[in-house]
Amino acid sequence: MNLLILPASAFVGNTAIVTDPTKLNHIRTILKAQVGDTLKVGQLGGMMGMAKIARLDEGCCVIDEVCLDIIPPPKLDVTVILALPRPKVLRRLMLDMTAFGVGHIVLINSVRTDKSYWGSPLMNRLDEFVLEGLEQGKDSIPPVITLAKRFKPFVQDELPALTANKSACVFHPYAGMSFGQKVATQGLPQVVVIGAEGGFVPYEIELLASVGMQAVTLGERILRTESAVNAVLGRWLD
Amino acid sequence: MNLLILPASAFVGNTAIVTDPTKLNHIRTILKAQVGDTLKVGQLGGMMGMAKIARLDEGCCVIDEVCLDIIPPPKLDVTVILALPRPKVLRRLMLDMTAFGVGHIVLINSVRTDKSYWGSPLMNRLDEFVLEGLEQGKDSIPPVITLAKRFKPFVQDELPALTANKSACVFHPYAGMSFGQKVATQGLPQVVVIGAEGGFVPYEIELLASVGMQAVTLGERILRTESAVNAVLGRWLD
Repeated sequence: MNLLILPASAFVGNTAIVTDPTKLNHIRTILKAQVGDTLKVGQLGGMMGMAKIARLDEGCCVIDEVCLDIIPPPKLDVTVILALPRPKVLRRLMLDMTAFGVGHIVLINSVRTDKSYWGSPLMNRLDEFVLEGLEQGKDSIPPVITLAKRFKPFVQDELPALTANKSACVFHPYAGMSFGQKVATQGLPQVVVIGAEGGFVPYEIELLASVGMQAVTLGERILRTESAVNAVLGRWLD
Repeated sequence: MNLLILPASAFVGNTAIVTDPTKLNHIRTILKAQVGDTLKVGQLGGMMGMAKIARLDEGCCVIDEVCLDIIPPPKLDVTVILALPRPKVLRRLMLDMTAFGVGHIVLINSVRTDKSYWGSPLMNRLDEFVLEGLEQGKDSIPPVITLAKRFKPFVQDELPALTANKSACVFHPYAGMSFGQKVATQGLPQVVVIGAEGGFVPYEIELLASVGMQAVTLGERILRTESAVNAVLGRWLD
């Protein structure tokens, strides 16, 4: 946690109260903070800044002298459309994409997305994973999250509007062009589509191609989904 | 597992026997393979190729018609020097760096590396994590792994030889130049030094600078170590 993010409702004037046990534990045992220390704080959906710890005990941390005068960092100019991954890796993927500063995350269905993934209890915790990502990446503005449980209607009816006048690509191991070549010759895309483990099946790649999605490869080596997402987003870091 | 890797001792003529329960389980339940199916196989430290499943039951898989005629993919021209991370993330980091094709991995001590990490039982399982990375990334040649438990002697006595006539950099959030700028103006470095969570302390950055390590930043946003390593290595994918 590199930034303590609290909802607007936690602030009263220039003070705020932290009661969340995870955050309290972090302040006490990881940051080893004490009364009088300053903390980096942010208001969820609002500004970022600093505050001073006025009181700290097991059940509660009171901060005062809250000064929120820092504009959160700009989002990356990229929409990530990701086939819903296994619940086990969902948390880290949401956290990482948020920490990188992806502005819009779309979770879509795909042939290789097991139907049970949509019913995972973790799907109710996306906001929590996003919050962790904001606190990791030092940002206070959550990304927009869209769930698209039906692949074909999403690709045919919604994707064209998302990619209008934008450069877009889908990652596919058997594509003729590499992502590196695309970036070198055409610049960074503004929309990327990334499959779950096992990638997309040919029908899905063809449907995506029919709405203008260019297939690009990350090379011969096959990476874990998490690793691939981070490797791709690394191109945006400047 | 995108490639079944077996030690040289598992092969007898053009047959081999798989008895490892994890590999057997993968063949049976994930790949859903059956007798007569072909598998991608590789010999640890040797060539890669194909084989046919001759027998498959709960305790054993016999493959025959083994034909190892594919040269493993080239390694990336980069040495990664990584401050030993928390045991919890060590497995995935070793797996990912191996899957990417890093040729030489050096795990070093740092101020922010807790001493207990070196005594973790996971340190005895590095070969296993590397094997997982090879099976993920479809490669049969393990990276060279060096352990450097003492930071200063490593930096002063060994690092100069590793970086002689090479471009090298260390990641540091407060550096003046970004990694993206470095790559754009000077090309990809051949040695990268990456800190544990919390990065390197100023003394460590100064010592690294004294042997020619240029500090570069990945930007304002702070990423998890895993995420940062993958984001950096993504630049090598072409």
